[in-house]
Amino acid sequence: MIIVLKPGTTEREIEHIVKRIREMNLTPHMVRGTERTVIAVIGDERDLQRHPLAALPGVEEALPILSPYKLVSREFKKETTVVDVDGIKIGGNKVVVMAGPCSVENQERLTSIAQEVKAGGALILRGGAFKPRTSPYSFQGLGEEGLEYLSEAKRKTGLLIVTEIMDPRDMPLMMKHADIIQIGARNMQNFRLLAEVGSYSKPVMLKRGLSATIKEFLLSAEYILAAGNHQVILCERGIRSFETATRNTLDLSAVPLIKQISHLPIIVDPSHAVGRTDLVVPMAKAAIAAGADGLIIEVHSNPEEAYCDGEQALLPTTFKTLMSQLKRVAAAVDREI
Amino acid sequence: MIIVLKPGTTEREIEHIVKRIREMNLTPHMVRGTERTVIAVIGDERDLQRHPLAALPGVEEALPILSPYKLVSREFKKETTVVDVDGIKIGGNKVVVMAGPCSVENQERLTSIAQEVKAGGALILRGGAFKPRTSPYSFQGLGEEGLEYLSEAKRKTGLLIVTEIMDPRDMPLMMKHADIIQIGARNMQNFRLLAEVGSYSKPVMLKRGLSATIKEFLLSAEYILAAGNHQVILCERGIRSFETATRNTLDLSAVPLIKQISHLPIIVDPSHAVGRTDLVVPMAKAAIAAGADGLIIEVHSNPEEAYCDGEQALLPTTFKTLMSQLKRVAAAVDREI
Amino acid sequence: MIIVLKPGTTEREIEHIVKRIREMNLTPHMVRGTERTVIAVIGDERDLQRHPLAALPGVEEALPILSPYKLVSREFKKETTVVDVDGIKIGGNKVVVMAGPCSVENQERLTSIAQEVKAGGALILRGGAFKPRTSPYSFQGLGEEGLEYLSEAKRKTGLLIVTEIMDPRDMPLMMKHADIIQIGARNMQNFRLLAEVGSYSKPVMLKRGLSATIKEFLLSAEYILAAGNHQVILCERGIRSFETATRNTLDLSAVPLIKQISHLPIIVDPSHAVGRTDLVVPMAKAAIAAGADGLIIEVHSNPEEAYCDGEQALLPTTFKTLMSQLKRVAAAVDREI
Amino acid sequence: MIIVLKPGTTEREIEHIVKRIREMNLTPHMVRGTERTVIAVIGDERDLQRHPLAALPGVEEALPILSPYKLVSREFKKETTVVDVDGIKIGGNKVVVMAGPCSVENQERLTSIAQEVKAGGALILRGGAFKPRTSPYSFQGLGEEGLEYLSEAKRKTGLLIVTEIMDPRDMPLMMKHADIIQIGARNMQNFRLLAEVGSYSKPVMLKRGLSATIKEFLLSAEYILAAGNHQVILCERGIRSFETATRNTLDLSAVPLIKQISHLPIIVDPSHAVGRTDLVVPMAKAAIAAGADGLIIEVHSNPEEAYCDGEQALLPTTFKTLMSQLKRVAAAVDREI
Repeated sequence: MIIVLKPGTTEREIEHIVKRIREMNLTPHMVRGTERTVIAVIGDERDLQRHPLAALPGVEEALPILSPYKLVSREFKKETTVVDVDGIKIGGNKVVVMAGPCSVENQERLTSIAQEVKAGGALILRGGAFKPRTSPYSFQGLGEEGLEYLSEAKRKTGLLIVTEIMDPRDMPLMMKHADIIQIGARNMQNFRLLAEVGSYSKPVMLKRGLSATIKEFLLSAEYILAAGNHQVILCERGIRSFETATRNTLDLSAVPLIKQISHLPIIVDPSHAVGRTDLVVPMAKAAIAAGADGLIIEVHSNPEEAYCDGEQALLPTTFKTLMSQLKRVAAAVDREI
Repeated sequence: MIIVLKPGTTEREIEHIVKRIREMNLTPHMVRGTERTVIAVIGDERDLQRHPLAALPGVEEALPILSPYKLVSREFKKETTVVDVDGIKIGGNKVVVMAGPCSVENQERLTSIAQEVKAGGALILRGGAFKPRTSPYSFQGLGEEGLEYLSEAKRKTGLLIVTEIMDPRDMPLMMKHADIIQIGARNMQNFRLLAEVGSYSKPVMLKRGLSATIKEFLLSAEYILAAGNHQVILCERGIRSFETATRNTLDLSAVPLIKQISHLPIIVDPSHAVGRTDLVVPMAKAAIAAGADGLIIEVHSNPEEAYCDGEQALLPTTFKTLMSQLKRVAAAVDREI
Repeated sequence: MIIVLKPGTTEREIEHIVKRIREMNLTPHMVRGTERTVIAVIGDERDLQRHPLAALPGVEEALPILSPYKLVSREFKKETTVVDVDGIKIGGNKVVVMAGPCSVENQERLTSIAQEVKAGGALILRGGAFKPRTSPYSFQGLGEEGLEYLSEAKRKTGLLIVTEIMDPRDMPLMMKHADIIQIGARNMQNFRLLAEVGSYSKPVMLKRGLSATIKEFLLSAEYILAAGNHQVILCERGIRSFETATRNTLDLSAVPLIKQISHLPIIVDPSHAVGRTDLVVPMAKAAIAAGADGLIIEVHSNPEEAYCDGEQALLPTTFKTLMSQLKRVAAAVDREI
Repeated sequence: MIIVLKPGTTEREIEHIVKRIREMNLTPHMVRGTERTVIAVIGDERDLQRHPLAALPGVEEALPILSPYKLVSREFKKETTVVDVDGIKIGGNKVVVMAGPCSVENQERLTSIAQEVKAGGALILRGGAFKPRTSPYSFQGLGEEGLEYLSEAKRKTGLLIVTEIMDPRDMPLMMKHADIIQIGARNMQNFRLLAEVGSYSKPVMLKRGLSATIKEFLLSAEYILAAGNHQVILCERGIRSFETATRNTLDLSAVPLIKQISHLPIIVDPSHAVGRTDLVVPMAKAAIAAGADGLIIEVHSNPEEAYCDGEQALLPTTFKTLMSQLKRVAAAVDREI
C-alpha cells in the first residue's frame, strides 16, 4: 500500500502514521519528494483492509498495490481451472454450450425444448425454477415442482442441469436436482448465499452483477472459494451503462481480462446481455472469438408464449443454425465446440 | 401499453397481434399513421407483464404507459405515509436523524457513541451486526453478539435501533433486537429477503441499490408492501456512476421525484454516498434542502480505529456542530429537526 | 408520438392539447382507458421536436414513436452504403484494417511504421497531427508538419491516410492531406465541425462519443449527411461505464444493432476501447465476429517511446500475427480481410 | 508516480526502467516487498505525462500521485478566486443567480422575460443564440441576430449577459455581446475552443461534460487558465448515469469537492440537470445548501411555446417564489443572495 501524505503534514502526524503501520507488523518506507511525501508499506495488504489508514490525520490517499483477492488469482494458482461437471469439462479446449428456456413452465414443454437443444449440440440444460423478477407481479417460477421437471428432462435427455438458487434455505433441493448451481446477477453480493454454496461441493456458476466491477466480481468468487468450494464458473452477462438500446451492455473485454487475472473459467450469456434475439447470434460469435469457455443461451419453442424473456429467446431452428456457425468461429480461434 | 408495429407488418401479423390482445381480455385501439401503425392497449398493464408482446412477429416495440408498481404509488394512496417507530414519526414535518458507527465493535464503545449521538440530537442508533463486505477477508460483524450490544445501548440511552439483515434466517433475531430492519443496497433485489421482511409487522428501511433505477427501487418496496408490511422507509445512498472521486454519486433529485410518485417517506445516507467526512456535512444540508424526511449518518469516536468505513465517519463533535447547522437549514424549508 | 395524460386532466386541458396538435397540422387520436387517457399523434414527428408537448398542462409524458434520424436510417435507404475511399471500399464484404501510431512523431518513424503495417495487410494509415488531449501539458501533435509527414508516408507506401480534425478552420489542410477525415469521440457533438465536414465531399470517419447513446451517435452522423456529405463511416471505440479495469467499455453489440438501423458502414477501434495491448488482440477478433466492417488499430515500433498511448500500441510483429488470425475469423463469418 | 512491477520482473528489466527514469532527470526509489517491488519516482509528474512508463516491459501499473492540473488547484493558489463581471462578483459571499430562456426567440419575448427575472432578483440574463442540439432538425438558434437581441435586452434592463459559444470563429461576436462566455457541456473537451476563449480576457463559464470526471473537468479549465485567462466560473449541470427518470443526474457533491481542490467558483444549473420544472425548485435549494456560488435557471413566460426545453423552464411567478425561498436557504448557510 502507498500512503500519500497531504502537503502540510506535520512531523508529529507522520510519526503517528509510522507507529500505526509498525503496530500492524508492517514496514514503512518513507520517500520524501519535492511536492509530496509518500510512505510505501510492504507486506500483506489484505491485513490492511481491516484498518482504515485513509482515516489517519495527514493522509491524503491510501493506494492499494496488491489485488484484494487471493484464491481466485493466477498468482495463487498458475494453471487454468477446469471444472468437471459429471464428465463435462468447462475451462478446457472445448467450448461448452448451455441452453434452454428462461423459466421452467411445464414438463412437456421443457422436455421438448431440452430435446431440441440437445439435438443442436448443447450439453447442459438451463431453466429457472426460482425466478428473481423485478416486479412482484411477474411470474416467480414453479419452485420445487420446476426442479422436478428439470430432473425428469435430465433423465429423458441426458443433459446436465444448471438452475438458479435465490435462498440459502433451498440448498438441499439444489443438491438433489442441480448439476451446476447458478447465482444470478442480482445475488452476486448476497454474501450469505455465496458462503452457503461455498460450503458444499457442487459446481457453481456465478454471474457478474449489473454494476459489479471485475474486482468485485472476483471477490464474490473468492467468497465461494474461501468457503471451500473451488468449482466456480464465472459468467459475464452484461453490465448496466447509460445505453438503453440493448437490455445491458455486454462487456466482452472482461473475458480476456479475467483470463489473465484468474484461473477460473468464464462463459458468456449473450441473451440477457442484449435482450433481443437478433443480436444474440452475432454476440455469441463474438464471445467465442474473445475467448469465452462457454455460452448460456435462452431457447424457447414458442417465444411469444414464454412466461419470461420471450423477446430474447431463440427458436430451436435458429439455435441449430447458430451452433453450426459457432463451430466455425471456434475453429478459427483453435477451439472446439 | 402502446404496441408500435414494424414498417412492413402484414395484415395477417396484425390480426394475430389483435387476437392475442383480445385473449387477455384487453381492447386494442388501432391507429394507422403515415409512417407507422400503433395499437393502444387499454387495461391493466400489470397483466401484460406476464406476456411478452414484444416477442410477437411484426412488433417493433411495446411501450408501457402505466407505472409497474401499485401499492407504493400516490395514485393508490394519496396521503403521505408516516411510519411510526415506537412513537418516532418518519415522514412527518420533523426530520429524523439516525446516527452511529458503521459496525458494532464492542459494548463500551457502542454505548459511548450512542450517548454522544443522543446528546447531538439523534433519535435512532445505527450500527451493523451483520456486515455485507465486498471482500471475505474484511470484518464481517459480530452477529448475534452485536445485536445484544445494540439492545443494551438502547436500554442505556433510550435510542431506537436500526440494523441490517442479510439472511432471511435471521428474522427472529431481528424481531428481538431491531426497531427498524435495514435492507442494504446490495440486497435491494434479494427478493426472498424482501418477501420475508414483508411478512412481519416491523418497520423496514430499504436502501436503493447501487445501480437501481427509481422504478426498480420502488418495485422492490412494492415486494414488501405486497407481502403485507406497509411500514417502509426508503433510503437514497448514492448510485454508481463513472465518477470515482466520491465513493458513489448521491442522486439527491431522487428525493423530490420519489415524493411525487410515492407516498412512502425517504431519507438520505450522505456517509455512504460520498465516503469522505469532509463532504458528509454539505451533503447532509443539501439533503434536507431537497426535502429528505431524515438522515442516517456514520459517527465514530475514533475513526482511525473503526473496523470499517473510518474515512467517512464523523467525530461526535463534528456531528453536534452539523446538527445545529441542520436545524437552520430545516427551518429554511419549513421543517423541524 | 404518444401523449400520455395525467390522471386528473380536465376536459379543458385536453381541448387545449388537441388544439395545439391540430395547429401543427397533425391528427390526434384519443384513446380513453380505465386508468389513463392517451392521445396518439400521427404524422412527421420530426416537426414535433420544435414543440415541447411535454410542457403542456395535463401531459404526463410524450413518447416518441419514430426514430429522430432520417437520412442515416435503413427506412430511408435500404441498401448498405459502401464508402469508396479512392478505390478502397468500406462496408462491402472485405474487412478493411487501418493501422498506425497514435500521433505522428517524425517522418522517419512514421514511414517506417507505415511500411510495417502495410506489410501486415493494413490498407489505410492512421496517425494524429492534431491531438485532443485531456491535459494541456500533454503532447498536442505536430499540426501541419504532421500532415505533411503523413502525405510523404502515403507517397512512399501507397497507403491512404485517415487523420483527425479538431477545428473547422483546418478543413483546407485536411482536404489536402487526408483521405478520410476523422471526427474524434470528444467532438462527436461539436455540431459546427460536423456541419463543416458535411459541406465537403471527402469521406468522414465519425467516432462514437464516450457517453453517446446509439441514437445520439446516429443523429451526429445525420448532421453530416444533412449537410450534403453521405460518405460517412461510423466507429465504435468504447463507451464510459463504471468499470475502470479497461480504458473504456467496448460496446460490441452496437455493431450489429447499428447495422440493422442504419445503412452506414461501422468499424471498431479496439485500441482506445481497452487501452491495453494484451486485450487488443482478442477484441479485434471479437469485433470481426460481431460483424464490423473494419478495424482501426494503434501500432508503434517502439511503444515505450511513443508520445501518446504507448500502453495500447501493438508492436509491428504482433500486428502481423494478429492479421493472420483475423483472416481466419473473417473467413468463419464469410468475410475477407 | 509509483511504478508497480509485475511479479516475475527480471533484474535486467528493472535496470532498464531505472535508466529510463534517470533519463527524465527523476530519482527512482526502489522498495522491495515480499509480494511486489515498487519504484517511487519523485519529481514533477506532469513531465511523465509525455512518457508512457506503463508501456515499459515489467511494469504492471503506473499510479500517479500528484494531480495532473496546476493553475486551477488550491495548492497553486490558496485564496478563492472571485470573478468580477463588470462589478458583479461570483465566488464571494453573495450567491449570484443567472436566469432566462433556453434560446433567444425574438426581441419582445426576450426583453419581457429579462424584465421578469430582474424583478425576481436575477443579476445576469441567460439565453442561447447558438444552440448545440442533438438533432440537426431542432431549432439551432438565431445566431448573430440573437446576440443583438441580448445586447438590446441588456440596455433595457441593465442585466449582464451570459451566452454560449460553439465555434472559435465566433469570438469577435462574443466579445461584442457577451459579458460571460459559456462553453457548453458538449464542448467541454473541444480543446481548440478552450484555447481560443483562453486567449481573450473575458469571463468564461465552463460547464461540466456529460461524462466528464471532476479531474477531466478541472483539466479543461486548466486549458483556459494555461492560455492566459484566469476568469473561469465552473458549472455543474448533471452527469449521465443509468437513471433515465431525470434528464441527467445532478452530482451535487461535486460542488464541495471542487471547492476543496480548486480556487475557482462553481455554480449549478438545476434546469438541465433534472429537466423537469417540478424538480428544479428543490434542487436549486439543495445546490445552495451544498455551497454553490450561484445558479443558472431557465425561465420562460410561455413554456409551451418555447423553441427548446419548455418542459424544464420555470414560469416567472414560480421563479419569484423560488428566489424568496432561496434567500432563506442561503441565510441558513451564512450566505446572501
